Amino acid sequence: MYETHCYKPSSGLRINLSASEIAEELLDDKSLVWVDFSDIDDNDIDLLTSIFNLHPLTIEDFIMPNARPKVEHFKDYLFLIMFSLESNNGQEKGKIRVAELDFCLGKNFLITFHDHSIGSLQICKERIKKQSPIIMHGSDMLLYSILDSCVDSYFPIITEFDNSVDRMSDELFREPSQKTLKQIYDLKNDVMYLRRSIGPQADVISLIVRGELAFINHPNIIYFRNIYDNLVRLNDLVGTSRDIITGAMEAYVSVVSNRLNEIMKTLTLITTIMMPLTLIASIYGMNFKHMPELESKYGYYTVIFVMFIITITMLIFFRRKKWL
Amino acid sequence: MYETHCYKPSSGLRINLSASEIAEELLDDKSLVWVDFSDIDDNDIDLLTSIFNLHPLTIEDFIMPNARPKVEHFKDYLFLIMFSLESNNGQEKGKIRVAELDFCLGKNFLITFHDHSIGSLQICKERIKKQSPIIMHGSDMLLYSILDSCVDSYFPIITEFDNSVDRMSDELFREPSQKTLKQIYDLKNDVMYLRRSIGPQADVISLIVRGELAFINHPNIIYFRNIYDNLVRLNDLVGTSRDIITGAMEAYVSVVSNRLNEIMKTLTLITTIMMPLTLIASIYGMNFKHMPELESKYGYYTVIFVMFIITITMLIFFRRKKWL
Amino acid sequence: MYETHCYKPSSGLRINLSASEIAEELLDDKSLVWVDFSDIDDNDIDLLTSIFNLHPLTIEDFIMPNARPKVEHFKDYLFLIMFSLESNNGQEKGKIRVAELDFCLGKNFLITFHDHSIGSLQICKERIKKQSPIIMHGSDMLLYSILDSCVDSYFPIITEFDNSVDRMSDELFREPSQKTLKQIYDLKNDVMYLRRSIGPQADVISLIVRGELAFINHPNIIYFRNIYDNLVRLNDLVGTSRDIITGAMEAYVSVVSNRLNEIMKTLTLITTIMMPLTLIASIYGMNFKHMPELESKYGYYTVIFVMFIITITMLIFFRRKKWL
Amino acid sequence: MYETHCYKPSSGLRINLSASEIAEELLDDKSLVWVDFSDIDDNDIDLLTSIFNLHPLTIEDFIMPNARPKVEHFKDYLFLIMFSLESNNGQEKGKIRVAELDFCLGKNFLITFHDHSIGSLQICKERIKKQSPIIMHGSDMLLYSILDSCVDSYFPIITEFDNSVDRMSDELFREPSQKTLKQIYDLKNDVMYLRRSIGPQADVISLIVRGELAFINHPNIIYFRNIYDNLVRLNDLVGTSRDIITGAMEAYVSVVSNRLNEIMKTLTLITTIMMPLTLIASIYGMNFKHMPELESKYGYYTVIFVMFIITITMLIFFRRKKWL
Amino acid sequence: MYETHCYKPSSGLRINLSASEIAEELLDDKSLVWVDFSDIDDNDIDLLTSIFNLHPLTIEDFIMPNARPKVEHFKDYLFLIMFSLESNNGQEKGKIRVAELDFCLGKNFLITFHDHSIGSLQICKERIKKQSPIIMHGSDMLLYSILDSCVDSYFPIITEFDNSVDRMSDELFREPSQKTLKQIYDLKNDVMYLRRSIGPQADVISLIVRGELAFINHPNIIYFRNIYDNLVRLNDLVGTSRDIITGAMEAYVSVVSNRLNEIMKTLTLITTIMMPLTLIASIYGMNFKHMPELESKYGYYTVIFVMFIITITMLIFFRRKKWL
Repeated sequence: MYETHCYKPSSGLRINLSASEIAEELLDDKSLVWVDFSDIDDNDIDLLTSIFNLHPLTIEDFIMPNARPKVEHFKDYLFLIMFSLESNNGQEKGKIRVAELDFCLGKNFLITFHDHSIGSLQICKERIKKQSPIIMHGSDMLLYSILDSCVDSYFPIITEFDNSVDRMSDELFREPSQKTLKQIYDLKNDVMYLRRSIGPQADVISLIVRGELAFINHPNIIYFRNIYDNLVRLNDLVGTSRDIITGAMEAYVSVVSNRLNEIMKTLTLITTIMMPLTLIASIYGMNFKHMPELESKYGYYTVIFVMFIITITMLIFFRRKKWL
Repeated sequence: MYETHCYKPSSGLRINLSASEIAEELLDDKSLVWVDFSDIDDNDIDLLTSIFNLHPLTIEDFIMPNARPKVEHFKDYLFLIMFSLESNNGQEKGKIRVAELDFCLGKNFLITFHDHSIGSLQICKERIKKQSPIIMHGSDMLLYSILDSCVDSYFPIITEFDNSVDRMSDELFREPSQKTLKQIYDLKNDVMYLRRSIGPQADVISLIVRGELAFINHPNIIYFRNIYDNLVRLNDLVGTSRDIITGAMEAYVSVVSNRLNEIMKTLTLITTIMMPLTLIASIYGMNFKHMPELESKYGYYTVIFVMFIITITMLIFFRRKKWL
Repeated sequence: MYETHCYKPSSGLRINLSASEIAEELLDDKSLVWVDFSDIDDNDIDLLTSIFNLHPLTIEDFIMPNARPKVEHFKDYLFLIMFSLESNNGQEKGKIRVAELDFCLGKNFLITFHDHSIGSLQICKERIKKQSPIIMHGSDMLLYSILDSCVDSYFPIITEFDNSVDRMSDELFREPSQKTLKQIYDLKNDVMYLRRSIGPQADVISLIVRGELAFINHPNIIYFRNIYDNLVRLNDLVGTSRDIITGAMEAYVSVVSNRLNEIMKTLTLITTIMMPLTLIASIYGMNFKHMPELESKYGYYTVIFVMFIITITMLIFFRRKKWL
Repeated sequence: MYETHCYKPSSGLRINLSASEIAEELLDDKSLVWVDFSDIDDNDIDLLTSIFNLHPLTIEDFIMPNARPKVEHFKDYLFLIMFSLESNNGQEKGKIRVAELDFCLGKNFLITFHDHSIGSLQICKERIKKQSPIIMHGSDMLLYSILDSCVDSYFPIITEFDNSVDRMSDELFREPSQKTLKQIYDLKNDVMYLRRSIGPQADVISLIVRGELAFINHPNIIYFRNIYDNLVRLNDLVGTSRDIITGAMEAYVSVVSNRLNEIMKTLTLITTIMMPLTLIASIYGMNFKHMPELESKYGYYTVIFVMFIITITMLIFFRRKKWL
Repeated sequence: MYETHCYKPSSGLRINLSASEIAEELLDDKSLVWVDFSDIDDNDIDLLTSIFNLHPLTIEDFIMPNARPKVEHFKDYLFLIMFSLESNNGQEKGKIRVAELDFCLGKNFLITFHDHSIGSLQICKERIKKQSPIIMHGSDMLLYSILDSCVDSYFPIITEFDNSVDRMSDELFREPSQKTLKQIYDLKNDVMYLRRSIGPQADVISLIVRGELAFINHPNIIYFRNIYDNLVRLNDLVGTSRDIITGAMEAYVSVVSNRLNEIMKTLTLITTIMMPLTLIASIYGMNFKHMPELESKYGYYTVIFVMFIITITMLIFFRRKKWL
């Protein structure tokens, strides 16, 4: 299933071209054809092979899921694997999904391929429909517009992620629980996942920025440098989050140990006060015939008073030790 | 013990050639001879020395087990040490076994050597018997087919490994035990072992991809890049697993400490409630002559009531402290 | 909103020039125009576009907050993003604030841009008003003066930060609490933040030092090397702090565990002494008819004496074990 | 004290030459002189200076102990510091000793120097006496033979070390004690020591392999590559051990915490069962006049029965909590 | 305040020259002037500016304390910042002090500058007074002699440091306390401080060794390589210490946890034995009318015997569990 946009200065924008029309427009250097495949069937593969003349390995990369951004240089086109970040607001709340987005950039065409719906592509299509000039300055600038819109879509997600990290940091010192630990663990794995997606994309774009790749006009490279800067900034943000999370993991053990100390202080306190008192009571509970105190009129009151004194002394002692 | 496959456009596929036939075919540039040694005896060494003219150090590398992928350039051939991943489904369940697979790639021959049976070699032999063209495009493409089949065999094993990691992650927060810890420890050592096997293989293939090695036709390099991409992707997958496992190891201490806190809360709770009650009971168990409360008709009921009040107060106190 | 300083050997220093005056002065190679924007409105953007001829991406960088130092080379000017360190003495005490400061360095002009008031810029403006020659030696030396004053402002802040680290180190071993842990955690995140700001600035300045950038006269490079040395030194200082803080985080768990050991020793001590005594008292509190000791005249005294002996023995035992 | 071996195709092998004979042989390009110093006195220094013409810094390196492999290029010779691994089977059992072995490789001579007796040197001397050809192919091949024998001697020691690591791993999960921890700590320091010895030796040999050093004939370089491969493999083995040991160190805390949890469960269990029973017994030990239960004929049996029920209930409760 | 040494083959050694004499000698290429400033006043700055013609930035570096070794190349001289290690035997015992030592190496002069008295400079001055030839072979060899003496002074200090680390290691497993932890923490910070001082010095000397700097005669470079080797060896030694200390920090938590386990075993042991006995005693202390055992003649003895059996059983149980 594919969707076509074609722009020619002479005839303006046309959409949904047939295979033969695409083949025709490709012959005209002034045309720019953008074909967006959202799911590939055998007809599509025929089209890609016969009209766009793609290498079998490129088509294999289109079909198979990839886990790593890359750029490959072919004779007639540049092949790019990039990733878009989509927040899964429907299903698993707060979980981040990375969606693959492949590009073939030719002299006067751009092919995009993706398995899942990608928000930033929709945005670009709507902008084109609203006569935005992003399709009018050549295939490389169209690529730039899509990538720029992809990378921009990272920022709100990363910001939301940072907020999760901040909330976790607060909770860590306010009321840490097993749930907080689980959260730190999950955030740690998420952040690792983000880093592995953003860093290599920056590497790929840096190849474009260094001007080592064809099909990108030299004066337009500065625009890709803008994308590169954004990716590096994102990488920094994510790196900062990772360091905070790692620190939180380390701090958690200490926080829990601190809590244990508090619990043990309570236990020791109660034991240290109660045990001697119970011992005294037990002593005067012995059944010896000859225990003079038992006969004394004020024996009982004296014992209660001594117990009171012991309790007060203990409390003062623990306050001095800063346990209270 | 060795098995021979020989292909020549004029005479087609022949198998199980004698030593002299091999020598003859090697003289014909159009022939492609594949000799697969599964265990080397002295006759084989003679064959390798006299007919294929291998360097003594190559033969030493064939015989001795190696722990590290490498590629070495000789005058008449390229020597490669690679590894295949075999899952030990028979013996030690779940344990991964890395099996060495050595190659000598010449102009019109390929020698493979291995100590243990290797699944992907069997697959290639069967494909050749079924007239698959993998032996018809030169020695480099035959090498590619075998390596590709080797690397493909990694994926299901890595996927199974990832599943173990996920199960462990779940168990860690649900019901961690000494067994979980042992499992994390074993997974950690396994993942280390995988990384040390996959990473250097990618390095070896990257030498081929950069076109620095002879005996590989330049247009075929792109196929080896495909293998390289797969190895890098595998390395990424394993790297992700390693980071998860490392995080799990760190989290385990915290999980266990959390459990300890729960246990200590139970102990402190029971002690804090029981000790004062026991003290009260002990006090009224003293044998003093003059203890007015003992004479009182409702003394006993009052004490029981006071004990009840103390218990309730304690429970409210601990609920407020979120211990209950 | 912007503030202008213009220096020409013939006419001396003039301030607050109009847009047209700026345009005029820019044509004169002997003039040096410094425009300091503290907040950008649409008029300012017009000025930057029409008179200074800045690239749209530069203006975007001016307006948007950036998190990373960088240097970019344009045809007519050099674009630098740097950071000044301002201590938030008013609001959140002790917290460090990093303020972005952007520069456009042209042949005879310097544009600075910042969102917040920056102390070191004020210092430079006052020095210029007091006839300091920092504006008289070209745009690059003016840039140097501002950067130098920026970097100098880092030192007292880093010193104050180091003092916090030292105080924390002391507290860690004297009387560690949950608050100490929170402090280590916050210092760790602060130091990470500092490193991410200082290190890349050193990288940017190193590009100037290596003489790879235009608009900096070669003989003046040695002055920028001075800034570079200071940034590297700052980075070292911050790196040292980071290592101390990381060590403190690790040490904290041990310190807390040590405290727990002390608490548990107290508990064990009291339990070990009290329990046997209570047992003895309970035994002689049993109501058996035939208990010969109970009849004995010195039974009671003997029991008290035995209890005393047990207590002393236990204390000696624990002293030997170094628990007391 | 030194021992001499001299080989010349015309006159065969001669041993224990005098200083003047050595000087004479050195003039003959066809001779190969190997002088092995096992302890240097002033006469030896004279010999090294006058006959072999060594640089004072080389002699200083001979005399002083070195902690780091290196290779240095002098006009007349190549100076190498390498290390041999000797197991201290006599003295400190299980402890590894690294013994320095220095080489001066000239056109037709090889000087070795060592403080302690080195097994692999003895092996080479015996092979020479048995007419092994290792001295007949030039000074570089003699160097190769000695180094090869040195590196081979590493393998059994590393294997024994690996076995220690495996035994420790087993013990860690079976019955960890303070002794296990001490062992992990010692293994960690040993492995660090091994890495610092093996890694830099590989670096030194890699310089020979890259063909950057004189006095090594180009066709013989492939033999040194064999040594290099072995050192890299050893480094890998040691690296694997290090990672296992590091993991064991981390796991130890968790193992000990698990044990603590077990202990605390026992304590909590006994306390939770015993305390309520003791409270009940204490209540019926009170001396109130009016306690109707005391008069009841079956009061005692009822109380014993209630205690039994409470115990059973507690045990079921703890079994449900998986504490039993 | 400064001290002067001047050597000329024709006139031999002269000390304490006046400013004008220095200026005169500098004109003579055969002279070598060494000026050692131990504290800079305004007269000294005049001397450095007018006679030695130093750059203002060099003088700023002289006056300001620096935290980082560096080398800078000026037209007339080479500027080096190095560090000497002085042990603070007087004041803070065991604490290491790093003292800055700056050099200006010209064609026929050497300027040294330091704030504190530096032992190795004193040694060199005394050697010169005793007619040692270190001042007779040019300014670069004088620089070498001073640096060599500096670096040699590191070794005893590092050895003493290593001994502290060994003592700490022993204590860690013998009788760890809060003091041991403090010591590990302090050693960790010291070792970090040492690394940051030694590593960059090696980098600076490596620039000299690579022959990239002027004012060092090429044949003398081999002597600087000796210093470089020593610094690298020191760096290795310090690196080893750092790894041991890091391991000790990690081991400490485990050691303390082990101790806690011991304490808790004691507590659990005593509780588990005493509680059931106390319960039995309490039961026979109940005041029920109908308790047949109380009437029995041997009741008391039976109970005591049962208590004894329970105690023995418990002890056997705990011995089996290896708690005793």
